Amino acid sequence: MKCDWLKIPAKELNEDCRQQALQHQNILTKPPGALGLLENLAVRLAAMQANAHPQLENIHINVFAADHGVVAEGVSAFPQSVTGEMVRNFANGGAAISVLARELNANLKVINLGTVNDPGALQGVTHLSIGTCTANFLHEPAMNIKQLYDSLNAGRQAVERAQLEKAQIYIAGDMGIGNTTAATALACAILSLPANKLTGPGTGLDQLGIQHKTDIIDRALDLHRMHFDQPIEILRRLGGFEIAAIIGSYIACAQMGIPVLVDGFIASSAALVATRLQPGIADWLIFAHTSAEPGHAHILQALQVKPILDLGMRLGEGSGAAVALPLLRLACALHNNMATFEQASVSEKNE
Amino acid sequence: MKCDWLKIPAKELNEDCRQQALQHQNILTKPPGALGLLENLAVRLAAMQANAHPQLENIHINVFAADHGVVAEGVSAFPQSVTGEMVRNFANGGAAISVLARELNANLKVINLGTVNDPGALQGVTHLSIGTCTANFLHEPAMNIKQLYDSLNAGRQAVERAQLEKAQIYIAGDMGIGNTTAATALACAILSLPANKLTGPGTGLDQLGIQHKTDIIDRALDLHRMHFDQPIEILRRLGGFEIAAIIGSYIACAQMGIPVLVDGFIASSAALVATRLQPGIADWLIFAHTSAEPGHAHILQALQVKPILDLGMRLGEGSGAAVALPLLRLACALHNNMATFEQASVSEKNE
Repeated sequence: MKCDWLKIPAKELNEDCRQQALQHQNILTKPPGALGLLENLAVRLAAMQANAHPQLENIHINVFAADHGVVAEGVSAFPQSVTGEMVRNFANGGAAISVLARELNANLKVINLGTVNDPGALQGVTHLSIGTCTANFLHEPAMNIKQLYDSLNAGRQAVERAQLEKAQIYIAGDMGIGNTTAATALACAILSLPANKLTGPGTGLDQLGIQHKTDIIDRALDLHRMHFDQPIEILRRLGGFEIAAIIGSYIACAQMGIPVLVDGFIASSAALVATRLQPGIADWLIFAHTSAEPGHAHILQALQVKPILDLGMRLGEGSGAAVALPLLRLACALHNNMATFEQASVSEKNE
Repeated sequence: MKCDWLKIPAKELNEDCRQQALQHQNILTKPPGALGLLENLAVRLAAMQANAHPQLENIHINVFAADHGVVAEGVSAFPQSVTGEMVRNFANGGAAISVLARELNANLKVINLGTVNDPGALQGVTHLSIGTCTANFLHEPAMNIKQLYDSLNAGRQAVERAQLEKAQIYIAGDMGIGNTTAATALACAILSLPANKLTGPGTGLDQLGIQHKTDIIDRALDLHRMHFDQPIEILRRLGGFEIAAIIGSYIACAQMGIPVLVDGFIASSAALVATRLQPGIADWLIFAHTSAEPGHAHILQALQVKPILDLGMRLGEGSGAAVALPLLRLACALHNNMATFEQASVSEKNE
């Protein structure tokens, strides 16, 4: 039941493939550097996939769903029943991530870690029932040790399945009413920032609602602060089942050598915690988009990353990562299929 | 031979479809606004296509190629022969836009308006031979009246073909060694700015090269300045065949009701001139990406637009617009295929 695997270091990137890909970019029929970030993404993927001609046909998306005890404090604009209702919507193909997965021909799996409103047995949904929801972290730790480890392991197991199915890139999505409150608390604890620096509207709180949410998070931070020297304990006290599962999945991807496309605010807070648990995984994370949730900027700054897209999205479910995926595919197509100067008999730059 | 059609006003957007699309966005299973710019794009496309459920299956890309007399002044990092060589590369499928068109299943047509290096007859390429290249605008107007009108008409004719083939969105690309010099001169003349505010490296000039290019543009601006009261005369004196054709194509799209996805620096300078010739077309232009060419920011500011992507691309050919296209497609797919709260029995926001 323990999570000793968390200590396994991340796989090393393939430096030979990175160099080959870099050199290949420079002989394609375009001014060097003219494809901007797309060149960099193709080269990074080459190093991750240990393939100078990276491929993104096989995309795995895992959406982790769970409920949050802190919702009792009135921190969300939507009722808690929505988490379970949305699990059903994922399975029925009507949610944003369902539509995106179909359009991308991606493999979508939903892992329900514990929702107050039981959606029942559903095709494409794994139910793990780690708890009905987390405990209210305003009064006690969100998870006990077993729940924490079960959640982290659920993430790793999801990635083991993706690896068996030869995933070429991995996206984790989240669903959990109240989870911007948990993610904000986690980031505040890790970054030693007060709640008012990061707290935002989530699914749509007004100014009064944001102020109340800020107060709740600050009080929770005060309650748990004496345990903030260990990231794993911060996660247990302030996280959620789905956030811990995403963390486990990111670390497992880096260990198994699967590139990760990181979604928005919730996913980035998971990435932040994950890099504190296992710093070597940072090389394996490609950040897809900047969320409209204001705290995201702080997390991105701490991770020293600039995402690919900035579309003002704030939905979760892995939707921002899915929207960025076609750009990575086009980066690979350009890298793999453009003619070289020599092949096309095109003159090179003046000396 | 004249271009009286330029005065035909742009088609009106369909306000009913815009309102229907807006209302539809608000009943989909997501917090209102959570898809950010993707919601806005779906609604804009609905208004343009006069269809509350916009479609982007049928994409037309026209790449216009032409050479520039001002290249005699040593303003480009690549030799002039590359324009014709790249026309061959487009036809053979090895250029960036060729790869992107295949990936997007888009209809790619190349219109060669006049290159110094004749690429010969090629499948998928129309040769119009408006001239071998423009005249050197450091000494004389780039085009005579006939060349200007022929170029504008070539753009319109290309869009007439796209309309016959029921294009649902239109992308214009450019190929022309030296055309950042022409586009910069055009933008400086329209915006009353000195060359040092806009001039950049184009395909890859160093600092000395940029200084030289700046001087050439400033001298050309001085030569032609007394004619800057008419945008059409600015275009004739400082433009290029391919830039004029893109302008003609944008105005024709707006008149015929085809949404335009505008590429980077060259395309935006064309859009700037086009909106001065026919202001009503602005509603029909969706700006795809911010170019790494520094002058682009000034043009975007003047047009009061913020493009979808900012990937540091600077290739032309319509490549940045093609890279943005999948995001528009996903915006439509989400808009058209997500479940509503009612369909999915998902609870709505707390009152």
